[in-house]
Amino acid sequence: MSILNFQLIIIIFTMLLTLGVFSQDTAISGIRHPESGIQDQVSTGAVTGIAEAPQDQGARIGRWVLVIHGGAGGPPQGSMPEEKEQQYREKLSEALSIGTAILERGGSSMEAVEAVVLFMEDCPLFNAGKGAVYNDEGVAELDASIMDGSTLMAGAVTGVTRIKNPIAAAHQVMLKTKHVLLMGEGAELFAKEQGLELVDPSYFQTPARTEQFDRMKKSQREQEMKDDRPKGTVGAVALDNMGNLAAATSTGGLMMKMKGRIGDTPIIGAGTYANNATCAVSCTGTGEYFMRNVIAYDVSALMEYRGWSLEEAANYLIHDKLKSQGGGGGLIAVDKEGNVAMPFNTNAMFRGYAKPKEGSVVEIY
Amino acid sequence: MSILNFQLIIIIFTMLLTLGVFSQDTAISGIRHPESGIQDQVSTGAVTGIAEAPQDQGARIGRWVLVIHGGAGGPPQGSMPEEKEQQYREKLSEALSIGTAILERGGSSMEAVEAVVLFMEDCPLFNAGKGAVYNDEGVAELDASIMDGSTLMAGAVTGVTRIKNPIAAAHQVMLKTKHVLLMGEGAELFAKEQGLELVDPSYFQTPARTEQFDRMKKSQREQEMKDDRPKGTVGAVALDNMGNLAAATSTGGLMMKMKGRIGDTPIIGAGTYANNATCAVSCTGTGEYFMRNVIAYDVSALMEYRGWSLEEAANYLIHDKLKSQGGGGGLIAVDKEGNVAMPFNTNAMFRGYAKPKEGSVVEIY
Repeated sequence: MSILNFQLIIIIFTMLLTLGVFSQDTAISGIRHPESGIQDQVSTGAVTGIAEAPQDQGARIGRWVLVIHGGAGGPPQGSMPEEKEQQYREKLSEALSIGTAILERGGSSMEAVEAVVLFMEDCPLFNAGKGAVYNDEGVAELDASIMDGSTLMAGAVTGVTRIKNPIAAAHQVMLKTKHVLLMGEGAELFAKEQGLELVDPSYFQTPARTEQFDRMKKSQREQEMKDDRPKGTVGAVALDNMGNLAAATSTGGLMMKMKGRIGDTPIIGAGTYANNATCAVSCTGTGEYFMRNVIAYDVSALMEYRGWSLEEAANYLIHDKLKSQGGGGGLIAVDKEGNVAMPFNTNAMFRGYAKPKEGSVVEIY
Repeated sequence: MSILNFQLIIIIFTMLLTLGVFSQDTAISGIRHPESGIQDQVSTGAVTGIAEAPQDQGARIGRWVLVIHGGAGGPPQGSMPEEKEQQYREKLSEALSIGTAILERGGSSMEAVEAVVLFMEDCPLFNAGKGAVYNDEGVAELDASIMDGSTLMAGAVTGVTRIKNPIAAAHQVMLKTKHVLLMGEGAELFAKEQGLELVDPSYFQTPARTEQFDRMKKSQREQEMKDDRPKGTVGAVALDNMGNLAAATSTGGLMMKMKGRIGDTPIIGAGTYANNATCAVSCTGTGEYFMRNVIAYDVSALMEYRGWSLEEAANYLIHDKLKSQGGGGGLIAVDKEGNVAMPFNTNAMFRGYAKPKEGSVVEIY
């Protein structure tokens, strides 16, 4: 009798343990997610990583990670001229090397993401800063945001037409005001006060964009909204050697967008989010879907509240949640452990990452 | 022996059931949260509520809930003239009765929240529409947003100075464009196209606001940012008899804000959020904190991902998360079961709710 009871008690405890391990998944998420229990162990691994430093001379110095994107969308593989593709690859590599230099010398993730995005704003290939697309009045209206994961402070500008580098203005909003987001003329006046360079709106225009605008003006605006051509938004996320996360995004938005349209890029939580407790995220795609679904913050929420890994959260949002709604785009993200995710549900996403021992990787399809 | 085993089996199942109920809390949230397990039972109560309808003639008809706010902040109880307090109470009651009439006759939650917010925009007492505060150039720059929990569609306008009812323009953005958020002149051109009434910017000014502006212009802008005087943003959330949730918010922002400053009100996920799967939320307070913390969406995320009740999620965000950062404000929310939350961490929040059998309640402190 007592042996049978002992067996039963063993069975009880086994069942209780099993339930305890899997309960956070089965109890909360409607979606099957068998690996979520593991995430907690990974999270505490951050401390382990630091503890291991003395054994590995480069562990602390080599902790940084940089991930960048030059926009999701684009034509199917093979349809872009090889020369053009090579140009994108070169500029993405150059952007990575700029950020790498900062992070390698112990610079902050904020410094790195700002410098990388600023470089991409200046590059006419991408839809941000010089080379940005035009609104339906033929003017480039620019948006940018930046967030510091160590303080949860953030800055952003939207609808600016004269600030040469919107990402620099976004950072100044964070540093010099009590506000998070400034728009239009107010943002431009502020940027001027801060000594940032203002330019004539024509500075942002390029022959390629003007040709694209003229072609599209003839067709329907509706057409463009459904269109899968490259959105070209740029962004960067980074983890620095101090363990601080940062995210930055900059864009001209959608070609032929209505004058005054604000997308996800300048919205903290939609297009950009960073939090040392979880991850740093920068999004690209048809912004309205990212806004309604609060995508950048949702990556963090799924990690914090459900215990999902970065990859699980990012993949679910891009490949399941957004895709089921018809929302095209992608995101780049890095978590506090240095894990990288770069999912996209479009034909292509210009992207790349760099890590101390792995060098840099650039991918399009 | 078999009786003892039977008893043990009963004990096992009791323990398993108990664990099942509480596991979603203990496994995921780091924060102690003993009541979250109960929420699941409440959630399934929605179906029960419908099933009970035949027994209770008014059950389906009487499902609707309306919650409104006229802004958080304000002086301590007793420091506002009684007459003024009475004016606020009367206008809040009137707003509730407008929404009640719509919901009682089977109108949608979208219709109700828009009508209520529109009424409050027209009332000079509140900081939205007529009676809104001024930016640092003495101009009322208005923000509004609305979200439909049944479709997750949303619309918003920001930085508009000539649209008489920004909430109506926000709704039109949702209905007539592929965009979510339009700013400034672009939003005004669109509103005009939609046949909405445009006014001279002076329409929004009132003697009381001009006096407040003049007084504050003499003091420091810094002072205002720390200030606990009423923010006055207005908002409404509702559950209708079809079980659809909606949220709407409208504001003039912060008195003496920088020209072009955008707060949380027009940001989906920060100041406004609605999702039939969880809740509808409208926020009020120092918007920057709500933006950085993505507060409106976070109420929903805590419910969906952690299984917290509406009350638990709303209280945690306002009384713990925001308060610990120095973020002043409050929110109103209703969940899909009709539960109401109206937490605030300021001296006061103008607020009220109405339910079919309880009539309407208006509170300030």
